Amino acid sequence: MTRVLDKGELVLVDSMGSDLSVVQGARISNGAAIPDWRGAPDEKLIRFLAMNGHMSPFEHATFKFYIKCPIFVAREWMRHRTFSYNEMSGRYKELPEEFYVPSAARLPVPGNKQSSEWVEEDSTASDYVMNTITNMSSAAFFAYRQMIKAGIAREMARMVLPVNTYTEFIVTGNFRNWMHFLELRNSDDAQYEIRVYAEAIGEVLAEKMPLSYEVLNEVSRGSKKKNG
Amino acid sequence: MTRVLDKGELVLVDSMGSDLSVVQGARISNGAAIPDWRGAPDEKLIRFLAMNGHMSPFEHATFKFYIKCPIFVAREWMRHRTFSYNEMSGRYKELPEEFYVPSAARLPVPGNKQSSEWVEEDSTASDYVMNTITNMSSAAFFAYRQMIKAGIAREMARMVLPVNTYTEFIVTGNFRNWMHFLELRNSDDAQYEIRVYAEAIGEVLAEKMPLSYEVLNEVSRGSKKKNG
Amino acid sequence: MTRVLDKGELVLVDSMGSDLSVVQGARISNGAAIPDWRGAPDEKLIRFLAMNGHMSPFEHATFKFYIKCPIFVAREWMRHRTFSYNEMSGRYKELPEEFYVPSAARLPVPGNKQSSEWVEEDSTASDYVMNTITNMSSAAFFAYRQMIKAGIAREMARMVLPVNTYTEFIVTGNFRNWMHFLELRNSDDAQYEIRVYAEAIGEVLAEKMPLSYEVLNEVSRGSKKKNG
Amino acid sequence: MTRVLDKGELVLVDSMGSDLSVVQGARISNGAAIPDWRGAPDEKLIRFLAMNGHMSPFEHATFKFYIKCPIFVAREWMRHRTFSYNEMSGRYKELPEEFYVPSAARLPVPGNKQSSEWVEEDSTASDYVMNTITNMSSAAFFAYRQMIKAGIAREMARMVLPVNTYTEFIVTGNFRNWMHFLELRNSDDAQYEIRVYAEAIGEVLAEKMPLSYEVLNEVSRGSKKKNG
Repeated sequence: MTRVLDKGELVLVDSMGSDLSVVQGARISNGAAIPDWRGAPDEKLIRFLAMNGHMSPFEHATFKFYIKCPIFVAREWMRHRTFSYNEMSGRYKELPEEFYVPSAARLPVPGNKQSSEWVEEDSTASDYVMNTITNMSSAAFFAYRQMIKAGIAREMARMVLPVNTYTEFIVTGNFRNWMHFLELRNSDDAQYEIRVYAEAIGEVLAEKMPLSYEVLNEVSRGSKKKNG
Repeated sequence: MTRVLDKGELVLVDSMGSDLSVVQGARISNGAAIPDWRGAPDEKLIRFLAMNGHMSPFEHATFKFYIKCPIFVAREWMRHRTFSYNEMSGRYKELPEEFYVPSAARLPVPGNKQSSEWVEEDSTASDYVMNTITNMSSAAFFAYRQMIKAGIAREMARMVLPVNTYTEFIVTGNFRNWMHFLELRNSDDAQYEIRVYAEAIGEVLAEKMPLSYEVLNEVSRGSKKKNG
Repeated sequence: MTRVLDKGELVLVDSMGSDLSVVQGARISNGAAIPDWRGAPDEKLIRFLAMNGHMSPFEHATFKFYIKCPIFVAREWMRHRTFSYNEMSGRYKELPEEFYVPSAARLPVPGNKQSSEWVEEDSTASDYVMNTITNMSSAAFFAYRQMIKAGIAREMARMVLPVNTYTEFIVTGNFRNWMHFLELRNSDDAQYEIRVYAEAIGEVLAEKMPLSYEVLNEVSRGSKKKNG
Repeated sequence: MTRVLDKGELVLVDSMGSDLSVVQGARISNGAAIPDWRGAPDEKLIRFLAMNGHMSPFEHATFKFYIKCPIFVAREWMRHRTFSYNEMSGRYKELPEEFYVPSAARLPVPGNKQSSEWVEEDSTASDYVMNTITNMSSAAFFAYRQMIKAGIAREMARMVLPVNTYTEFIVTGNFRNWMHFLELRNSDDAQYEIRVYAEAIGEVLAEKMPLSYEVLNEVSRGSKKKNG
């Protein structure tokens, strides 16, 4: 299990495939006898596939994670429509008081609408932000529990909970789609709080499919430099 | 434009196709000369398709909506992965103080984890819930604006905002997928707040594709009765 | 490896998950502590999910097959758009002379456009069909090889090959999508030649995920009876 | 209607959206009042989206085509899984004798497995290929019709038909996915016979969404040059 943010978690629950799955998927094009096929990972072939946009051989490996993250992170995550999800529901269950508090403040970066930069942890700004977020979130959870105690339906009481409330979900996807997720979310443009999850996923993929991970990362960096 | 909930909106922005698109899609199976084809909507054929699970002819009609709804409704909506979405972003823009307050309280239904039932609008319970939700949401927006005024990054300040905050998005999908959305969300199992959006979408579809809408609804009700 | 048709093959190459994956996916809704979760397959829960159309928990198990089948079977197969495919290419490789010859003739069923029924193997009709298909396919492969020997591009020479030529592919998909494949293809409406592949896949799924397979099959049979 | 190859056709049957749909999709991020929005196509914004991989705003425009093409072209086409298809069926209908004959021979390009180059139309090689393909295809259709006259089921008789037999289908997809189709199929790597359809589709898109078409094409050419 990997700890992420102040109370988040990431666990690789299950997986299928390896660099060999990529090679096997590609080799069938020229009819290499597949079912008995026992080859070696072939870096040159994997590089050829990546450079030429032949992405389908990267779809036969699958990774399933358990994720605990703030709702606003889950909101960005679930815009990725090729994954399979099951999430904790505030309709079925009273949500535990767990919310994300950043370790310092972040300020806007002039001239870049989607960037922000950290200030020192020991600073007035950081104290102010951390106190405000903690106090407002605690107050929201207090009101939430009060409504539930008063007999209000869970699905209604939860409306006051803030988007930094932690949620939990299972997410399954193939390697190609995970790498696309990393391209968008393990990126300077991505908000810090989802980027740290993307980094943790990248570490898992790099360990499980080292050749494919490295090659697809290179190609992605190459296009970004080209376009940027 | 359709008003939904206290401050929500739904607008059909664009659409393509009609009951005829379904018939045309089906007719190509037996090679009716398609490009010049000018037929009539054929209820018997549409019924045959629906009863036998031949759903692909329902995919050639497309509907695009503008939606303004609470975040917790958008969260359920965006689990539907076959639609195309663009949503307002709290990273790019300071969010206006708009949040959903229900018109009365709802209580749990014993023995049904996902149901709730309304109590009278003029009641202590309703006053309590409406006041609590209004007060907590206002306080959250106040803290949000204070942080932004103090120079904190928008993407951080928004963490205190509650899930009843209104968001806005564009969503495009084909008729088959919209009908599947209605099957799950215009349903007794669905939370009231998303059901009213599903109803409004159902009215648009019923007007634009009356035969297909009626037939698919009948078949869906049939299966539910059978399984339920 | 399972033999299918006269020269076809089906091999389960890799898989991930089990009935437990379904239960785990569903349990997260009410926040059962997931990463450490070690439960038992829960038939009642699986049945509840299937009866109420909660299909997403069935998406976390994945099955990857190697398939060798006639092109006209692959054509129907690849209309299923949720799977990942890699197929042998007649552009990269000279195709071996392997084509499907049915073991007897089939005649149309009056009043049913998409049905056919077998005649006896030892009959004039069966001899006629088997001879015609064998002769025409052999002649096509002869012309194909002649063109390639004469130096014509493979991608052009292959144009004469018949749709009963065997092709090979790798296909990966999740359990939910495989069950939908079976619903359409392991069905009286499906052509015999794809149905036998669907049956073989059904046997694999029934062994790997016995509870889920049985329950989803029951529900599917129920709806068909209802609508049919 | 556009004529493609010797007997192929391409017709834009229906469409929804324009360059404005892209701009509208993007503008909602910063909450421009969307339903009443009447802006101008904004080239700078479209360029920004394309350069930064923000592709979702390109999904709200939809194009529906009628296509008549050889089966081997349809086979490559239908590997694109984001489109909606309905195709003529040899199970429902006796297929008319229409098959593709190239206008000249093509020879392999040494050192490039997937390329081929035309020889002169007036040449022994071209005569040989055109005659062989014409003769073999005619013979296959003759055997096909004989089997059907003899009372054999259509779905069985068709097994002898070659992959250059013309088929017909309806295909609907959004602009983003059509541009991805063009990236792979309107490309030097693609077989000539699908490239000419991709070119014809490119002309339609260029007319309907000129800014988006031009900008996405530039970005795509840029990445190819970089990686190639």
